[in-house]
Amino acid sequence: MPIIELHILEGYSDDDKTRLGQALTDAVRIVVPATPDAVTVMIHEMPRADYMRGRTHRTPAPAQPDQISIVRQFLTAMEMRDLDAARGFLGVDFTMTFPGNKQMHKLEDLVAWAAPRYRFVTKTYAGFEALQSADAHAVVYCHGTLSGEWPDGTAFAGIRFIDRFEVTNGLLTRQDVWNDISEHKAKTT
Amino acid sequence: MPIIELHILEGYSDDDKTRLGQALTDAVRIVVPATPDAVTVMIHEMPRADYMRGRTHRTPAPAQPDQISIVRQFLTAMEMRDLDAARGFLGVDFTMTFPGNKQMHKLEDLVAWAAPRYRFVTKTYAGFEALQSADAHAVVYCHGTLSGEWPDGTAFAGIRFIDRFEVTNGLLTRQDVWNDISEHKAKTT
Amino acid sequence: MPIIELHILEGYSDDDKTRLGQALTDAVRIVVPATPDAVTVMIHEMPRADYMRGRTHRTPAPAQPDQISIVRQFLTAMEMRDLDAARGFLGVDFTMTFPGNKQMHKLEDLVAWAAPRYRFVTKTYAGFEALQSADAHAVVYCHGTLSGEWPDGTAFAGIRFIDRFEVTNGLLTRQDVWNDISEHKAKTT
Amino acid sequence: MPIIELHILEGYSDDDKTRLGQALTDAVRIVVPATPDAVTVMIHEMPRADYMRGRTHRTPAPAQPDQISIVRQFLTAMEMRDLDAARGFLGVDFTMTFPGNKQMHKLEDLVAWAAPRYRFVTKTYAGFEALQSADAHAVVYCHGTLSGEWPDGTAFAGIRFIDRFEVTNGLLTRQDVWNDISEHKAKTT
Amino acid sequence: MPIIELHILEGYSDDDKTRLGQALTDAVRIVVPATPDAVTVMIHEMPRADYMRGRTHRTPAPAQPDQISIVRQFLTAMEMRDLDAARGFLGVDFTMTFPGNKQMHKLEDLVAWAAPRYRFVTKTYAGFEALQSADAHAVVYCHGTLSGEWPDGTAFAGIRFIDRFEVTNGLLTRQDVWNDISEHKAKTT
Amino acid sequence: MPIIELHILEGYSDDDKTRLGQALTDAVRIVVPATPDAVTVMIHEMPRADYMRGRTHRTPAPAQPDQISIVRQFLTAMEMRDLDAARGFLGVDFTMTFPGNKQMHKLEDLVAWAAPRYRFVTKTYAGFEALQSADAHAVVYCHGTLSGEWPDGTAFAGIRFIDRFEVTNGLLTRQDVWNDISEHKAKTT
Repeated sequence: MPIIELHILEGYSDDDKTRLGQALTDAVRIVVPATPDAVTVMIHEMPRADYMRGRTHRTPAPAQPDQISIVRQFLTAMEMRDLDAARGFLGVDFTMTFPGNKQMHKLEDLVAWAAPRYRFVTKTYAGFEALQSADAHAVVYCHGTLSGEWPDGTAFAGIRFIDRFEVTNGLLTRQDVWNDISEHKAKTT
Repeated sequence: MPIIELHILEGYSDDDKTRLGQALTDAVRIVVPATPDAVTVMIHEMPRADYMRGRTHRTPAPAQPDQISIVRQFLTAMEMRDLDAARGFLGVDFTMTFPGNKQMHKLEDLVAWAAPRYRFVTKTYAGFEALQSADAHAVVYCHGTLSGEWPDGTAFAGIRFIDRFEVTNGLLTRQDVWNDISEHKAKTT
Repeated sequence: MPIIELHILEGYSDDDKTRLGQALTDAVRIVVPATPDAVTVMIHEMPRADYMRGRTHRTPAPAQPDQISIVRQFLTAMEMRDLDAARGFLGVDFTMTFPGNKQMHKLEDLVAWAAPRYRFVTKTYAGFEALQSADAHAVVYCHGTLSGEWPDGTAFAGIRFIDRFEVTNGLLTRQDVWNDISEHKAKTT
Repeated sequence: MPIIELHILEGYSDDDKTRLGQALTDAVRIVVPATPDAVTVMIHEMPRADYMRGRTHRTPAPAQPDQISIVRQFLTAMEMRDLDAARGFLGVDFTMTFPGNKQMHKLEDLVAWAAPRYRFVTKTYAGFEALQSADAHAVVYCHGTLSGEWPDGTAFAGIRFIDRFEVTNGLLTRQDVWNDISEHKAKTT
Repeated sequence: MPIIELHILEGYSDDDKTRLGQALTDAVRIVVPATPDAVTVMIHEMPRADYMRGRTHRTPAPAQPDQISIVRQFLTAMEMRDLDAARGFLGVDFTMTFPGNKQMHKLEDLVAWAAPRYRFVTKTYAGFEALQSADAHAVVYCHGTLSGEWPDGTAFAGIRFIDRFEVTNGLLTRQDVWNDISEHKAKTT
Repeated sequence: MPIIELHILEGYSDDDKTRLGQALTDAVRIVVPATPDAVTVMIHEMPRADYMRGRTHRTPAPAQPDQISIVRQFLTAMEMRDLDAARGFLGVDFTMTFPGNKQMHKLEDLVAWAAPRYRFVTKTYAGFEALQSADAHAVVYCHGTLSGEWPDGTAFAGIRFIDRFEVTNGLLTRQDVWNDISEHKAKTT
């Protein structure tokens, strides 16, 4: 039953508008217990000449890129140890915090830190979830399981992980990682 | 600049409308790079007699309770080991998954499982974040640090954790927990 | 999918608004092939102080009474030969046209005309339908079957009829009647 | 004074929108006693990308054809005994009921039934009126007078008739006919 | 034909809304050549809980008082030489400019300056006109004719004048006066 | 905070819409004490087929030309004594009233009247202000100072003036002029 009307300046792509419509639908449903089918979104796009604030026409800012897609691409580059590609997704003050409260800023440091922990690791995703904070950054969560090889070459799989990213203007500014690797090692030792 | 109009049936509280307005503001900002101050929300409430779908007037469903508040109350009850209170927040098919991929359904089982791991634990929250899925459940994340006492009575603090909850119609249906306890133990052993 | 918003001055009853919502729903569906459930109507009522045309606030005119209800009451009064009650529903220039193109203006004339045709007649309604013309009058159709007694006392039933009424500002201004009485008599003679 | 806003998906022709605007104008006037000049209609067409229900964009269904035009064409084809053309307007379960409660399904049967009643008949229309039912069908009424020749070759004219059609998705599904032919014959016999 | 919708926070009086509706009607007509009767204004008032900007509810600021009324009251007080009352309408930096480019800040100075020019003066108003500048002040114009007595006691009348006022937040901040007094004297000398 | 929506027929230029947006912004601010930045205007343009009043589509009337621009051009032509150009801006019943209540209808009469008063005059504008009356005419005010030469060839400058124009359908229909020339002469004699 809820009907949402969004007035924005002309200039957003069909994909942007799909993301907007879905985000608005979900936003209402966190309070109003309606099925998605009961939520209607109408986007009204205004040509520049038809909108004015402060007696002045305005220009639309380019859309935020899809934060989940950015995180996915970063994680894929990291799995492949393509640090150059991965670095392209990072904001200036990027900070990583890994299990054991290990804080790092450079991808090379992460690679060095991980070396004695596993030969390689692959993520199987159970889901990605994104939300916008009241501040500048969006937050992306992904969780699932890790598989790979320990330094001694034995394989592992099914180890739970969760990552939390902050994405500011399309760049990663923070990553927090939790997983069960240590739990697993404790068990298997 | 974006202006959001929401049409809903009359019957939501001022608090509900504040939550709606904030959720809608955030939803737009995940795509449109506007400061919160540039986002306006207008809620138009309709008396029952002024709204019709399918030639029929409709009755508004009661608002979803604040999912973050529910999670907070549940976690507080668990810290205090007030299982009766905590149980009141659980849906029928509630499932917990704890570090080491330990799945449980009953709070008593969790208590038993935790007994050899720590005497007690207290959570310090760095933040709560909620979003609505495209399905029936909302998702609440909270992360921060654990402090407490190990079984031998020594104190610990500053151990990172993150919880992911699914909340369906005001009841917890799923909890996934990750933390650095094992990592910490591995280090200190 | 179609969403209809109606802006009217405050002052219409819930019943009036139900009739408005249904009439608007049906109106859209004569062109847009949507099920009723896909049509939403939102009525926005404006207090007198919130509406202005020609730099002047306006006062809402009282709603038209339900034209179908008026026709029903008139027909019931006529069946009971309560001419005083029936007369209360008539506009100044009321004209009736009955089978054989018999035009009359007074209910007494109709009663006299009908006397040699049947002792009494009762209508069983298959349906009422109303629409607004582009002029001042609404049109109400009703059809169904007649039962009663012929002048010689034999009973009849199941004889098809249709009435077309024009209703102007709540008063009947025209009635056109067709039925199979003559057809029936031709057969049974 | 009433102002109607209609939100529909882009894709309706100017003619469709004229019909929508007029149907909505009339619909309001059946309750609100306003002259047509006091009723404003604004149609807001949404590109597919600007509308979403259930987190999904939608495609507009093609407009219902003008039901009055369909009835007119059918009646013209029947007058000319062009049964092939007439048949093209019929839905699968088309049922006709003619004076004397004669029910038929095939146009050939109607032709056979009419043969002994008149040599040919031409309709002069006093008016067509259409409305949408709460179900799938629209209803079209037309009334006026019949002229033609009796089987014996004598001419007749000015005999009142009324037809009621049901039109479902552009096809005739029901026709009910009343007229004064029998009344006329009774008089002239 | 133009239709104006204004969304404001609840809390403005009926008089405020009348002024708003008239100002908006006039504003449109300076560009769109419509008679006033063709301009419709709908004011949508929002309860505080239904409006949000920057994730925050807002409180409506009290309406600006009617600037023309303020000017009228000030001029009446000045005619009556009720300087205390007149002073109540003045902002801190009030500046008057009178014929001959005489600039003053205090009403006493004006009285002293006028003393040798006329014994008293009364204004007959041909009209008041107000507009809002793009800055903080509104502008009020009034023009008409002066009558009164010269210092020698002879009467005068029909001398044209015009005043221009700036009104900021309900207080007069500037007055500019032009009139034909000197022209008149030149002629009559 | 106020949000203004204007619905007009398609066909106005970007400049027209800028003027509309600014006029509407100012109109609201004469009552609601908001900074210009707090006022949003959205113009919704309707294709002809999407708007209907009285069951009929309408055609937009051409925009009123910018009244201030017309006054400026007229005053420039007059300064240059280009009477042909100036005459092109005049409506049929154009009336001028100059200091001393001198009423004239023809520009030649004005030129003759002014001849003994000054050799030439140039206007320096402090500002132009326009508003629409509730009648057909808009009003344009301009004020500033005059400079030029007296008939004897001596120069003057800084003499205050104000003009009030009425502009009806793009043509000047009335001009009222006040200035300090006489005041100045009285002083300097």
